[in-house]
Amino acid sequence: MFMRIDHIGIACRNLEEKIAFFSETFELDVVAREVNEEQGVKEAMLHIADGEGGGSYIQLLEPLSDDSPVGKFLAKRGEGLHHVAFGVPDIAMAMTKIGEKGVRLLDERPRHGSMGSEIAFLHPKDVGGVLTELVQAARPSQSA
Amino acid sequence: MFMRIDHIGIACRNLEEKIAFFSETFELDVVAREVNEEQGVKEAMLHIADGEGGGSYIQLLEPLSDDSPVGKFLAKRGEGLHHVAFGVPDIAMAMTKIGEKGVRLLDERPRHGSMGSEIAFLHPKDVGGVLTELVQAARPSQSA
Repeated sequence: MFMRIDHIGIACRNLEEKIAFFSETFELDVVAREVNEEQGVKEAMLHIADGEGGGSYIQLLEPLSDDSPVGKFLAKRGEGLHHVAFGVPDIAMAMTKIGEKGVRLLDERPRHGSMGSEIAFLHPKDVGGVLTELVQAARPSQSA
Repeated sequence: MFMRIDHIGIACRNLEEKIAFFSETFELDVVAREVNEEQGVKEAMLHIADGEGGGSYIQLLEPLSDDSPVGKFLAKRGEGLHHVAFGVPDIAMAMTKIGEKGVRLLDERPRHGSMGSEIAFLHPKDVGGVLTELVQAARPSQSA
């Protein structure tokens, strides 16, 4: 079901500062910067490796407002690990299979993620306290 | 410097319960179980993928006591994401390069990690609130 760890999401207060730190300290390339109004974040993807069906990244997330999900996370827990995302070959099939096992989905249908991907979140209370994201990466022909 | 996301570490209260949940829900194989007295944990590795220089895993961690680092984490934050580990080709070289950039190392020299690996932790306050581990996987000839 899982082909790779697609990314870890890190919540931060100052995206540009953290992009500079992570890219310089760990010698990583910034491959995307996006604003996702639906999720209330601006974000960057730093490339670590290529894997089956897509890459592996560090995702840096800065909230667009204090009352967004990431804004509330920062107020409660401070900067740090926010979620983990696993790459799947077929997100609709993965959502169905995982839902049938009793895990609640936070998304009824896939929505738009970073770099043209389709994503869905699982309820952290059903996954050992871990906010878990499923990612079906964009096909090369779609992202071109 | 980083070849892969080696693993995400998830703190839990009942290792056997979480092994059953993660392996069944996400169809993952348990490839190692260990007790690490030095770190005060019992742990399991669930295999996700193979990558450059090693694999990618979910690591489940149950503390051996309440006053261990993972025990204190659970008391403060509850179950969930505890740390992230990145695979490096040469841990001594990675520690030197990262240390020279001003990031504090929690380990002066590499110590023993899961499945014969060598590991070192970076200070979370210097890495955006993220407890960050470096992993040099065991060479196949060493793990045999």
